[in-house]
Order: sequence, then C-alpha cells, then structure tokens
Amino acid sequence: MARKAAIIGGGVIGGGWAARFLLNGWDVAVFDPDPEAERKIGEVLGNARAALPALSDVPMPAEGRLSFAGTMAEAVEGAEYVQESVSERIELKHKVYAQLQQSNPGVLIGSSTSGFKASDLQKSSPAPENIIVAHPFNPVYLLPLSEISGSPANPPEVVERTVQIMRDIGMFPLVIRKEIDAFIGNRFLEAVWREALWMLVDGVATTGEIDDAIRMGFGLRWGQMGLFETYRVAGGEAGMRHFMAQFGPALKWPWTKLMDVPEFNDALVDLVAEQSDAQSGAYSIRELERIRDQNLVGFLRSLKDRNWGAGKVLRDHDERRRVAYHAGEVTGAPLQMAELQVLPSWIDYNGHMTESRYLFCASEVADAFLRLIGADMQYVAGGHSYYTAESHILHKGEVKLGDRLTGTLQVIHADEKRLHHFITLQRGEMVVATIEQMCLHVDMKAGKTCAALPAVLERLLPIAEAHAGLPRPEGLGRAIGQGRV
Amino acid sequence: MARKAAIIGGGVIGGGWAARFLLNGWDVAVFDPDPEAERKIGEVLGNARAALPALSDVPMPAEGRLSFAGTMAEAVEGAEYVQESVSERIELKHKVYAQLQQSNPGVLIGSSTSGFKASDLQKSSPAPENIIVAHPFNPVYLLPLSEISGSPANPPEVVERTVQIMRDIGMFPLVIRKEIDAFIGNRFLEAVWREALWMLVDGVATTGEIDDAIRMGFGLRWGQMGLFETYRVAGGEAGMRHFMAQFGPALKWPWTKLMDVPEFNDALVDLVAEQSDAQSGAYSIRELERIRDQNLVGFLRSLKDRNWGAGKVLRDHDERRRVAYHAGEVTGAPLQMAELQVLPSWIDYNGHMTESRYLFCASEVADAFLRLIGADMQYVAGGHSYYTAESHILHKGEVKLGDRLTGTLQVIHADEKRLHHFITLQRGEMVVATIEQMCLHVDMKAGKTCAALPAVLERLLPIAEAHAGLPRPEGLGRAIGQGRV
Repeated sequence: MARKAAIIGGGVIGGGWAARFLLNGWDVAVFDPDPEAERKIGEVLGNARAALPALSDVPMPAEGRLSFAGTMAEAVEGAEYVQESVSERIELKHKVYAQLQQSNPGVLIGSSTSGFKASDLQKSSPAPENIIVAHPFNPVYLLPLSEISGSPANPPEVVERTVQIMRDIGMFPLVIRKEIDAFIGNRFLEAVWREALWMLVDGVATTGEIDDAIRMGFGLRWGQMGLFETYRVAGGEAGMRHFMAQFGPALKWPWTKLMDVPEFNDALVDLVAEQSDAQSGAYSIRELERIRDQNLVGFLRSLKDRNWGAGKVLRDHDERRRVAYHAGEVTGAPLQMAELQVLPSWIDYNGHMTESRYLFCASEVADAFLRLIGADMQYVAGGHSYYTAESHILHKGEVKLGDRLTGTLQVIHADEKRLHHFITLQRGEMVVATIEQMCLHVDMKAGKTCAALPAVLERLLPIAEAHAGLPRPEGLGRAIGQGRV
Repeated sequence: MARKAAIIGGGVIGGGWAARFLLNGWDVAVFDPDPEAERKIGEVLGNARAALPALSDVPMPAEGRLSFAGTMAEAVEGAEYVQESVSERIELKHKVYAQLQQSNPGVLIGSSTSGFKASDLQKSSPAPENIIVAHPFNPVYLLPLSEISGSPANPPEVVERTVQIMRDIGMFPLVIRKEIDAFIGNRFLEAVWREALWMLVDGVATTGEIDDAIRMGFGLRWGQMGLFETYRVAGGEAGMRHFMAQFGPALKWPWTKLMDVPEFNDALVDLVAEQSDAQSGAYSIRELERIRDQNLVGFLRSLKDRNWGAGKVLRDHDERRRVAYHAGEVTGAPLQMAELQVLPSWIDYNGHMTESRYLFCASEVADAFLRLIGADMQYVAGGHSYYTAESHILHKGEVKLGDRLTGTLQVIHADEKRLHHFITLQRGEMVVATIEQMCLHVDMKAGKTCAALPAVLERLLPIAEAHAGLPRPEGLGRAIGQGRV
C-alpha cells in the first residue's frame, strides 16, 4: 500500500510538496479551505509533472492518489507524515497542530515555516516531540533543499525519521545544528533582500538591473559551489587563508547598509511592483514558472551529468529506486533493456524528438545490455570495451515531449569479437524507430579489436544462441535508398 | 591588425581578463612584477581554453598574441584598453594610473576594483575621465557580468566605449546608475559573507553546510532569474504585491545579525580555513577550478539552449561573430556546412565522443544545409519540413574532448520530395565518420510527404545537379554486415 502524506495549506509551497510526494508514489490528502485550492494545486502539479520526471533516469513510480479533504481530521487520517504550509501566523499554526494531533496523536508534523523556530512551533502542544521544521525552497518539486531544524524536545529518532522521509521523496535534508530564526537559507535571502530594497530606494539600480547583477555573475556560481568553496577557489593557489587575508579587512568597510532597514510602506511596495512589472510583465506568472522550471531542469541535468552538488542528490535518488532489468531466461524474446522519458531538451524546432536523441536512446539500451553481459564501466576501466562501428537508423514514428519509450534489444549475431544487434524503440505498442548496430570488441590501449574476455562471452553467447531462433526483424540489413535511388 | 589590451596585475582576475581578451582575438600584454606571473597566467589560460570555446557555436577567432611586458610603459604601448587588477590599495592604484597615463595619455583604463568608487580611483589623475570601474566576477573568462561604474568626471562617450569593449569580448556590461561602494554584486556577497561568518562563529553551521544550503536551494534559482523575478513567481498568481505583503513584515524580524560584524582575527581565519579544508580539501584548487568551469559551462549551455539570461548574452555574442557559410559556386565540391568543437558533455566513459553526438554533428551539418536552401525555421513555422527517414553511420576514427570537426555535405540525389545526402565529419584531413541520410519533405499538418515549395527546389536542385558529377563517396549505400554476417 502506498504511504500517505497530509498537506495542510495548498498554496505555492503546499502545492509543491503535494506534487513531490505524489510523483514519488505517495498518496496525498490536501486540506485547504480556499475554494480555489483544487485548481491551484492542479496547476502546480501540471508544472511538476512536466519537470520532475525529466530529472529521473529510472522509471518514476506510479503516481500516488490525490484527494482533497473536507476537514483536517480527514486529511490526517492514516497519514504517516504531515507537511504544514499555512500562513506565517504562530497562533494559526498552533491551532492547526492541536487539531492534527487530536485526530492522529502520533503523526509526524513538518512545518514549511520560513522563520519560526521549532521550539516556537511546539509551544502548548501535548506532543512537542512530533513537530519539527522542514523548510523547503520554491519550486519544492525541483529544488532539493529541505532545512530540518528541531528543538531539544525532538528526540534523535524524530529528526532521523524526518530526514528519511525527505530522502524518500528525493530531497536533500540539511539538519541545522542549533535553533536559529530563519535557519540558514532565509537569513541570506533576507540580507540580500534588505540590501536590494535599499538600492531601489536609493535609486542605485532597478529590480531588473539587480537581477542581472545576480544571474550574470555570482548566481551562476552559487548553483554549484556555494559561498565558501567558491572563495576557496578564488583565493587561487594560496586558497582560503589567502582569500580571508585579502577580504577580511572589507568587514570594516562601508559595503552594506544593513545596520538599518528601509521603511516598509506603500511607496516601497509601489516602487518594487512597478519596476517588477516593467522587468517581467511581458510574461504571465505561469509562463515564468515554466521558464524557471526548464532552466532549473537544465542546471540540474547538467550537474547530474557530473554527479556534483544537487546532481549527486538526483543520482543517489535514482540509485535507490533503480529497478534492475533482469535478463530473465535467455531462451526468451528480445530483451527489454531500458525505459526512457522524452525530456524538454530532446525536442527540436519541429516539436519532435531531435534526431540524435534516437541514437542516444539506442545507446542507453545498448549500454544496459553491455552491463548485463558484464561489459560494464569496471570492464572498460580494465582496458576493454565494445565500440560501435556502424549504425543504421530507421525512423517509423514521431516522438513528442513527455513520451515514454521502451527499448528492446535482439542479438543478431555474436562471436568473440563482434556483436551485431537490433534495437527497437517503442511507445506502447507503436515502433518509433529501429537501430541496427555492429559493435567491435576492442583492446583500448592497443587500439585494435580483440576477443572479449571469457566472463563476457559466457553471458553473451548463450543469449545470442537463444535469439538465433527469433524471426529476423523487419528492416534488418537495409541500405539507404535500397532499390529506389 | 588585432586590437591590443594591457593587463596590469596577473592574478586570478587579471589572468581571467587576459584569457577572455586573447580568446576573443585581442593581443594582450601583461605586466606583473611577480616572477611566477607567466606560469600562473598560463594555467588560467589553459582552463579558459578548455571552457570558453565550449560556449561558442561559431568558430572562435584566431587567438591573439600574449606577451609579458617588463614595464608598464611597454605593456600600455599601442593598447586601446587597460584592465587594472592590482591589489586593493588606493595609493597603489593611483601610482599605476599615473604611470599608464604618462606613457599613453589617451588610453581607457578599466579597474577590476571590488569596491572603490570611480571618483576615488580618479583622484589626482590628470585625465580622470579615462578611468572607470569595470568590475568582473571570477572566473572572468566564463561569467559575463562586468559592472561599469563611472563618476560625473566620465563623459558618456567613455562609458559607451567601455560598454562596447565589454560586449566585444562577450561580456554583459551593467552600467551602475549612481556611485556606490562595492557596486551591486559585492554588496550582496558582502552581506551573505558577514551573515555566514556569524553562523560559523555561533556554531550554527559549518562552511560545507552553508554551501549546501546555498547550492541545493536558492543558488540554483539565482543563476537564471535573480532575486526579484524569483519572488515575483513565488508570489504565485497574485505576483509581486502579494509577495511584498507576505514578507514585508519580516523586515522587522530578527532574521539577520548584520547590525554588527564578527571580529576578524586569527581564530576566525583558522575556523574558516579548517572547515574549508574538511569540506573541499580532497580536491586541489586546480581540480576545483576545472569542476567549477565544467559546471558553469553546463549551466550556461543550458541557458543558451533556451536563449535566457546569460545564455542570451552568449547567443548575441555568437550572432555578432557569425560568419555565414556561403554555398559559393554550386558547381563546386561537397559543401562545408559547419565547424564544431567537442564539448565536455559530449564525452562518454571511454573518453571518446559519445555515439549519439556523431548524429548530433550530422544534424548540425544538415540543418545548416537546409537553412542554405531556404528550408529554415521560418519555413518550418509555415508547416513544411524535411524529416529524416533513415540514417547510416560509419565510424572511422576516434574523437576526443576539444577536437574541432568540420562537416561537409554532398547531395546524392534530390527530387521534389526526397533529399538523399552524404555527410562527412573530419578532424583536419582525417575522416572520423560518415553519415548517409534519406530525408523526406513533409506537410507537417497533414502528416505526410509532399513536394517542397518552389523557392526551396530552386536552390536545392541546382546543387544536386552540380553534385551529380562528384565521385560516389566511399561507404555509400552500405548495409550493416554486408557480405560478412
């Protein structure tokens, strides 16, 4: 049975949590008295469905069941975890916790609060130990960070259980060592926000110029290394101590106005809102969300390629969910070796999957097959590999964004040095392309072909033999323009 | 003749400037009394050569000539522009400017200063109008931002000239409206730095945890949208005013410690340096630089795919430099349609260009050819396109990181509906792969083949006719396993 999370408060943040739980296979019950909640969550979920699966290289679990509860008691019934994302009013949060704990006394409650400490949240609760901060960043379904902040009332098991739930839905839980208002991320954001408001008020820069100052410069750095590692590198060969010596004195320089804050009044709101309209008004919020999501997917995929930072979080999450494709009985049909989902960056200007991605999909299938027969990365590290000498691609159907493809492989012929196979890419029952390939086994150092090692041949040859009885696939051995040109 | 820049101060920042100018075709003379300067700049330049060309989709200009000058007078001779990146000591900067302006009175001097105002820099100069702030972010050869900050002494032409030079080397010049210490970016960095030091001193988080709090969350957002646009989106449907109403009150909350700064002493330096060693010490600074550069190239390429933010800066820079490949005389040889450079993300675990990238390169060649015959994006927008029905790839040589490939296309046969061509990818004289393709002209709405429009056929058919006399390329019409399997 699927695990169940209750989402209390269905705004941008609550909706993002709902999406993340659902897409990771949890059932989700939402409670929000807003009559528009269902529509709003539906839109966030639509965004999330277009973006989050694009980060996964293993099939996503079946989406959980989404329900909207009429009462908090109904939402929390049978729930293993509650994520509370109501407004930042402490009395309201206390009231919510009282109702939740009355209906489901043992339930674990994580709060999305931007700044209240766990000990503030726990006040007056009969079970303070089950209330903890789990503070995410928008969009919750893409950004991995969840700041976990407990008070002395939370036993280590509760912290550990929260951490584990966050990992289960693909997040990066960061446990904060000491209670502090606004935790870590929001303290930085607040400092920058205050400084930025001064710049607007003082006429130094507009909202658009400030955004450019961030996204054309240090913003790009921070998506992959943060502050200290960036400065360590900036110190050059002399490293962190050199950097400190160089910029330490600046602590006394007038580089900030944060000894004071600008007055929050209508004039300030107007100033910000009008400049923001001028900067971004050409796009609707929904368009901006999609642009943001595509950009973030691009960043995250590129970090994942390198197994670095947030990309490592994604890889680890895949690894935990990876379902090994079993070769099964070698007497069987062509082997289903991969499931793939068509990502936004795979689409060309025709709106279809770009040509080279067909071959990319075929490589994923062939690589999975090579892993199956033991010609894996360790084998390559030992100096042997299969190189593709020749490929023939037949396009049979169009593929669009979000399509899920399965890839099967049939061995046509294999001997000590050669592997001739035929890959079929299908969307459901529909064949979208076939890729026939001739691969040669090589000694990489010598740069020439050689016999595969016995361990590989012992796995490859029985499959080849079993496949020898299969019908020859349609299109095998074709040449381009055969009989026509 | 190449334009010349003088680089005064050859540290991490000066070296980054030198690399950016050189790779954009300028001659560069460096002055730095450090006996290690030549080695250090060589290493920065090595990093830059591996990274910056990877962002370009048009051939880079020939690299400029790098020289090391024995005196400032020699460095600045014949220079159109000076970039000063010496230590942050105002007397030193004044001394440098005096020497430069004595040797080359009219030269434009941009300073990399992190915080001095232009009017501070200009003090005591006989030509204050030619001294201006051009403040970059590390790594200078990848991050586009250059904050341009002048004083009332700088006439608009000087600001404009500086802006133009920054654009010429692919940067994003951001002109600051009013003089302010530390400009925009560094004020934010300083605020975050001070807050982060408090967290270390207070034992709330380590350097590694702080970096994770940034790069797993808002750091990813800021690489593409900055602060205000991000918050506009976070406001949800109600937008910026809603966001302000929600978080305005937080201005009065104790979310920052910036009313004071931590004391800068040895204990603080030790604390930061030791935690930084624990966090990043497994990598050398050079390794971290390469990791950072690859991550940034990944981010920037993904933004470029979407023509957004810093990616738009890259596209615009390409556009300015694009050399149209001319079809030339249609009686000629196969058409050279593209130059490509092998990027880090194109490399597989064998250390070679990954299989699907061969087809990607072929698509780049074919797309350029289709643009040439008028079947461009506008044509596609009108509902017609060429779809690839079949491809045959022959691998003939290995391709490695950084290799430059040229792609030529020979038309084998063309008629109203069909285009059969043969693409050759070469590294220098060496053929690394051939790709034979059959493309069909389609009416995209009807989803079936149809005749190409006359304007396209008028350009395609004469080329086909001219190519009919060329020898048949080796490997044409091959089937896999021909005569062997």
